[in-house]
Amino acid sequence: MNEVLIIGTVALDTIETPFGKVYKTLGGSATYASFAASFFSKPALISVVGNDFPKGHIKLMKRRVDLDGLKIVGKTFQWEGFYEYDMNEAKTRKTELNSLENFKVEVPKKYKSIKHVFLANIDPEQQLETLRQMNKPEFIVLDTMNFWINNKKNALMDVIKKVDVLLLNDGEARQLFNTLNLVNAASRALKLGPMAVIIKKGEHGALLFTKNRHFNAPGYPLEKIVDPTGCGDSFGGAFIGYIAKTKDLSEKNFRKAIVYGSVIASYNAEGFGLNRLMGIKLKDIEGRYKEFHDIREF
Amino acid sequence: MNEVLIIGTVALDTIETPFGKVYKTLGGSATYASFAASFFSKPALISVVGNDFPKGHIKLMKRRVDLDGLKIVGKTFQWEGFYEYDMNEAKTRKTELNSLENFKVEVPKKYKSIKHVFLANIDPEQQLETLRQMNKPEFIVLDTMNFWINNKKNALMDVIKKVDVLLLNDGEARQLFNTLNLVNAASRALKLGPMAVIIKKGEHGALLFTKNRHFNAPGYPLEKIVDPTGCGDSFGGAFIGYIAKTKDLSEKNFRKAIVYGSVIASYNAEGFGLNRLMGIKLKDIEGRYKEFHDIREF
Repeated sequence: MNEVLIIGTVALDTIETPFGKVYKTLGGSATYASFAASFFSKPALISVVGNDFPKGHIKLMKRRVDLDGLKIVGKTFQWEGFYEYDMNEAKTRKTELNSLENFKVEVPKKYKSIKHVFLANIDPEQQLETLRQMNKPEFIVLDTMNFWINNKKNALMDVIKKVDVLLLNDGEARQLFNTLNLVNAASRALKLGPMAVIIKKGEHGALLFTKNRHFNAPGYPLEKIVDPTGCGDSFGGAFIGYIAKTKDLSEKNFRKAIVYGSVIASYNAEGFGLNRLMGIKLKDIEGRYKEFHDIREF
Repeated sequence: MNEVLIIGTVALDTIETPFGKVYKTLGGSATYASFAASFFSKPALISVVGNDFPKGHIKLMKRRVDLDGLKIVGKTFQWEGFYEYDMNEAKTRKTELNSLENFKVEVPKKYKSIKHVFLANIDPEQQLETLRQMNKPEFIVLDTMNFWINNKKNALMDVIKKVDVLLLNDGEARQLFNTLNLVNAASRALKLGPMAVIIKKGEHGALLFTKNRHFNAPGYPLEKIVDPTGCGDSFGGAFIGYIAKTKDLSEKNFRKAIVYGSVIASYNAEGFGLNRLMGIKLKDIEGRYKEFHDIREF
């Protein structure tokens, strides 16, 4: 049986950064998340693409991900964006929802008993619907983005109440909980139900808040960030992939999972799209994990 | 003999933050730095104040700091500033240089052989002059601010070449080395001569770069930042105070000194001006130092 279920988007991304431009490259929150999770566990994916979606992408994904939950209808979701010198913030040029617009989640029967679920960034109503169709998952992680905070806040708040771990980036945490102080934002989030809140801060690393403890994961010192697209998604995918592999829901193990998430995200940023992630091996991951230890020792 | 010489400003600060306002409170880079250093070493101070400078402040400072290098002439330097909700950035309402304007460093004879020197934030020409008058210090740390990058860049670059450790905040590092990437900025800084560069990132912690190694110190999770004024100065003061106490210039010891700097800076931010720092004891410092261990363990 598959160990992690991931629902989110699969997209064709056109991305421009100070280091170059790529056209209609394989992207989307579920794509990045499932690739990242696949280093640790076997992911199953729920999403939709169009008839225009290249067969090569399907083949590539199938090597790592169970695609029985991938619908093919209409035209693929497309995102076009760019980064200026401040690589922390993506700017959107164009979004074409296409087949994502009318997408309704249907969880294949064989996925319904998967114990680890990652609700990657997608419409919170589809995230809720996924949970409705699942049989009692043991561990649910939620990611989102500012678009849903602005446009579907009520549905998003409903999902937050049902999950074990909430992932947010720092800007989203500040916006959603109406405070600039991330410690405050996290403590408000914890009151809604999740046992843990993880705040992703890009180059500044990630913070884990649980009821009584706090963990601060360093950022990896990258001299060149080629393309940060998908870093948050791959962070989340690696996090739940590692949890599913180890089946240990302790705060201590969350810390390790966060560092693995940071390792994968740091590789992600080193190339356009999934290019860099496709080239790394487990020994690269373990090597960088050790470096994370070293940059934290005192 | 005194163990650390600190040159910088002594000021009367008027500060407004979302948590209140204080008028003409004791401030200045050398004041914060020497208070912070005093937890670890005996600091000697070089600066200038005016005849209006309250006797009570002198008395207070004398308990911790050797003031034989403090000139009294004219009117005290005054700074007025405020913080909006983003407590990372001070905004200046007014600066009155007063007696600082014509200040010329004269290092008292008894200070000339001090081995550890902190060039806290002040005109880089005064920092250079200090070094000229000293007998062969063993360890020199330099701090500065954007004002000097904008107005006296050449003099500042001259000082950088003469110091062992360069302290900068992230914005200054980006500005001075003309790159948004802090890893790049640090590697350019190291090429100028310092054996170490420390980039202070406020709530995001601090980074240490040396030739072959990198250390990432976490930020302390403060739920309420009352007043960040002087945090960078007290970070630097604690850093060199700890180095002077331990007389160990290894990279490993720099890491510890940075964490002590972070501990002191985190207390600094918990009250207006020096209020909180005046109330803490060595056991508070050690307690929080242990917490820093805990929040980065994995």
